[in-house]
Amino acid sequence: MNFDRATVLIGVVGTKMRELVWPIRVYLEDTDAQGVVYNASYFRFMERARTEWLRANGADHDDLRDRFRILLVLSAVEAKFLAPARLGDMLHVGARVSMLRGARVVFAHEIRRNAEDGELVCRATAEVACMDADRGGPRRLPEELLSGWSQ
Amino acid sequence: MNFDRATVLIGVVGTKMRELVWPIRVYLEDTDAQGVVYNASYFRFMERARTEWLRANGADHDDLRDRFRILLVLSAVEAKFLAPARLGDMLHVGARVSMLRGARVVFAHEIRRNAEDGELVCRATAEVACMDADRGGPRRLPEELLSGWSQ
Amino acid sequence: MNFDRATVLIGVVGTKMRELVWPIRVYLEDTDAQGVVYNASYFRFMERARTEWLRANGADHDDLRDRFRILLVLSAVEAKFLAPARLGDMLHVGARVSMLRGARVVFAHEIRRNAEDGELVCRATAEVACMDADRGGPRRLPEELLSGWSQ
Amino acid sequence: MNFDRATVLIGVVGTKMRELVWPIRVYLEDTDAQGVVYNASYFRFMERARTEWLRANGADHDDLRDRFRILLVLSAVEAKFLAPARLGDMLHVGARVSMLRGARVVFAHEIRRNAEDGELVCRATAEVACMDADRGGPRRLPEELLSGWSQ
Repeated sequence: MNFDRATVLIGVVGTKMRELVWPIRVYLEDTDAQGVVYNASYFRFMERARTEWLRANGADHDDLRDRFRILLVLSAVEAKFLAPARLGDMLHVGARVSMLRGARVVFAHEIRRNAEDGELVCRATAEVACMDADRGGPRRLPEELLSGWSQ
Repeated sequence: MNFDRATVLIGVVGTKMRELVWPIRVYLEDTDAQGVVYNASYFRFMERARTEWLRANGADHDDLRDRFRILLVLSAVEAKFLAPARLGDMLHVGARVSMLRGARVVFAHEIRRNAEDGELVCRATAEVACMDADRGGPRRLPEELLSGWSQ
Repeated sequence: MNFDRATVLIGVVGTKMRELVWPIRVYLEDTDAQGVVYNASYFRFMERARTEWLRANGADHDDLRDRFRILLVLSAVEAKFLAPARLGDMLHVGARVSMLRGARVVFAHEIRRNAEDGELVCRATAEVACMDADRGGPRRLPEELLSGWSQ
Repeated sequence: MNFDRATVLIGVVGTKMRELVWPIRVYLEDTDAQGVVYNASYFRFMERARTEWLRANGADHDDLRDRFRILLVLSAVEAKFLAPARLGDMLHVGARVSMLRGARVVFAHEIRRNAEDGELVCRATAEVACMDADRGGPRRLPEELLSGWSQ
């Protein structure tokens, strides 16, 4: 992913997009025998935050499929793990759209400990592709979503 | 689950059914911060063993859906955890059909450490229901599967 | 598990114990290719509810280990899956102590769809053993927890 | 991650390192309601392959902790998902060390469908940090591992 290009393109789309910060408690299921949160768990957490971002912005998975006939699928991800999270931690998982164009949406994520401005645990970007639910290939995001999400 | 009834019914079905023992290595993903295998992981392990049992007995999930138009779904489970398994353990996960009738299949599972006759880690039974893939309700197991599985 | 015995013993412990109902949204991570919640996910949900029950009743995992020098580990479970849950469902996962004696705590769980009195998706009991965090064997629940939890 | 730098540094370390390709069957637990492998599952698969790479190169997690007093933890990851994998697929998950220096090991992964030269499903790099098991901070890889792994 070339995110310099992403930074430029967001100017095309327009104004700053909303961030959603979703609180997630760390349970035993999320940890491993090294005593910390297992790496794949962070990707589950970020997907929950993206799903809640979508819900807060007018579309859950059912709407996407039934009303818009699209699926959103993860096409690329880049993450840095900066500090270990532990059992019982309350994580604040941020999700905001940093780029939106054609069939692609890039989310920027930050995971912080205990507070919205707490210690940074993980920083990541996730590129999501819009797929046609009927034909299966990539498809331009419906205009209604594009314009709603970019305000 | 009334397993006394199960014990009686297996006589109706007929002879002793094949057991499959599937080796499963314990990875970090399977463990938790208490340093042992997380409880839900055992249910994933047993499902892998049932899937391999099905495969060994002539039907994978695609066959069940495409050829027989059925889905197998877990309807009840009973498990005892007798000893903790740990990171790096090689578990031997046994699966055999202990009862087979109408729309129900009961699997008996034993999970042992390091060897097929190793320390018993978990003993469980899992009742699987045969569902109609098109209509969604329970459906009698196809005769071909019933007769193949009960030999 | 002999739950007739459990029913009798609860009389010894005393009065009816508090129930906690924990809301859990179903995300993609919880589902499988059959289009419903994957069976092991329910055990993760019930463990979250037990953890929140403990937290609401005065002890998180850190307290148990650091202050009481105990671990709580699942020793047996029995579950019936009565209706499939699906992506996007809001589940209400109930947890209450149905039996409490010596080194054993039995939790009764009900998982309902959309509302606390919604459609019953899963009913289960989970037996938890109190283990000594230092020596590793079973250990009687500390008196402070026993008396606090049984009021 | 700057992988141009990684490419240069591998020359410092020396010769081409061994690749391990680990076969992994896709089970229900790995899939989601969109009918494909859930994104976090790929990170579990790659971690299994790294663990097997370590085992094949002389050190499992117990050795690392007990003999070398180190932990290996994921510090950064970058992945592209190129084609969806599905229930029942046999994936071939490649792991090789592409860079090795100081306290850092970078693994390159390729996941292919059905065969070692099958369709490319996912390509990723994973940067692993060597941590001191006693003090917790980063620590230079023990000389014995460095020299063994770079042959």
